Amino acid sequence: MTRGFIIPIGGGIDKVQDPQILRRFVRLCGGKQGRIVVIPTASTERSTGQSYEDLFLDLGVKRAVVLPFDSRADCAREDWLTMLEECDGAFLTGGNQLRLSTTLGGTRVAKILRERNVSGMHVAGTSAGAAFLSEHMIAYGDEGATPRHSMVALAPGLGLTNRIIVDQHFRQRDRLGRLLTALAYNPFALGLGLDEDTAAFIGPDETLEVVGSGGVTIVDPSDIEFSSMHKAEKAEPVSLIGVKLHILVRGGHYNLHSRLASPSALTSDKQ
Amino acid sequence: MTRGFIIPIGGGIDKVQDPQILRRFVRLCGGKQGRIVVIPTASTERSTGQSYEDLFLDLGVKRAVVLPFDSRADCAREDWLTMLEECDGAFLTGGNQLRLSTTLGGTRVAKILRERNVSGMHVAGTSAGAAFLSEHMIAYGDEGATPRHSMVALAPGLGLTNRIIVDQHFRQRDRLGRLLTALAYNPFALGLGLDEDTAAFIGPDETLEVVGSGGVTIVDPSDIEFSSMHKAEKAEPVSLIGVKLHILVRGGHYNLHSRLASPSALTSDKQ
Repeated sequence: MTRGFIIPIGGGIDKVQDPQILRRFVRLCGGKQGRIVVIPTASTERSTGQSYEDLFLDLGVKRAVVLPFDSRADCAREDWLTMLEECDGAFLTGGNQLRLSTTLGGTRVAKILRERNVSGMHVAGTSAGAAFLSEHMIAYGDEGATPRHSMVALAPGLGLTNRIIVDQHFRQRDRLGRLLTALAYNPFALGLGLDEDTAAFIGPDETLEVVGSGGVTIVDPSDIEFSSMHKAEKAEPVSLIGVKLHILVRGGHYNLHSRLASPSALTSDKQ
Repeated sequence: MTRGFIIPIGGGIDKVQDPQILRRFVRLCGGKQGRIVVIPTASTERSTGQSYEDLFLDLGVKRAVVLPFDSRADCAREDWLTMLEECDGAFLTGGNQLRLSTTLGGTRVAKILRERNVSGMHVAGTSAGAAFLSEHMIAYGDEGATPRHSMVALAPGLGLTNRIIVDQHFRQRDRLGRLLTALAYNPFALGLGLDEDTAAFIGPDETLEVVGSGGVTIVDPSDIEFSSMHKAEKAEPVSLIGVKLHILVRGGHYNLHSRLASPSALTSDKQ
């Protein structure tokens, strides 16, 4: 049994000019044979789900369907859960990540997404959908490059992995500080800062590949020698000594386990 | 292989009059044969670790020793790691939980604690030490009974389990609001509000038993029908409909998996 891909996307997906992220996702899900469900729970705009359904159909999949889980009661609808059980990939739209965690958290939808990802279903999320994928989700926070105490609010996410903490619209919204703050709380996870129209395709061998027009900022805090986080007062800037940083663009690879980066495919990369 | 106990304690442990929590921990660790390490990382007071070492020796264990991991460099000291590998129980003192996560997070100490707990070592923590045990740790927050947006800050903890979110000094510091806020972010976990001098002994069968002079407030958000968390502005109070609450005192049991509570032993309880 091989785990499916986990695919956080930084928001602002190119849907028209050169939709390489969506194309790659469709190919992964089986191309013409692919069945994709769209989960628009993060968004309050009715048209969000429909527009992705149309895009995936335009890209030639066999089936694309929106499952508009809007309330916790919706998350028990057997007809929708059956479709979730039978698809090759799930796509979570943008919006507000707290709508995702408060609506799907602890329901059968979250359980099925986790179980089916373990057994091979691919799960992609853009913007709020990307933030939600991991066990530790950035719920909201402030802008700026310097980490400061209380700059970021974490909440439990979907939990497909706990190795990463994702931030999105990364360069566009100046979010290095809040990602560093989240990592400084406990330097066990890796930070992934995703630019707009940029995705990290994380394979079952824990190697990620960068797809899209921007960059992925990988923040590795494992060698931090010193942090003043536990001493800082609210909103005070924080010292961090020894953070490792990589910026990777299209085609770049990184192994979350070995923590090795490469501008092209890693030798051990089997994707 | 049987997992060791996970034992969050609400702070304010009775150490003199009737130290039932420490006694129970010592018995679990093998009594006269028991070897216990004390990890005082949360505290900045030098005497904290020593006082627990003395207490455990007074209670008759074979060995009790303080491992004063004070920096991330300390967490690589082979002599201390060997003692951690060879003990029956680890005890984390109170202080500041962010000192625990920033100092131990991502180091071999955290890894050994997780791995050895899986293979049978018992891990107890009081106050800050209790908050740190789970995957989702309450780092800090505000007082009051009503949940409010931004009332609580979560950070990644040690990760012995992700089923629970722990809060301590619970009744003494009026913390229901911040625990409810943490759970409302994602209603998949269970909340454990621990009064002072009160512990939850969570066994390998996922059944917890209450030990000590106060109560444990168990908050089960799994049936929440409605939450306004995703719509609330900063500091605004939040609606939550359908939260389940249990208060258990000494001898009370609760199964984290079946979510069944009992004022005395559960039928399925094997402890």
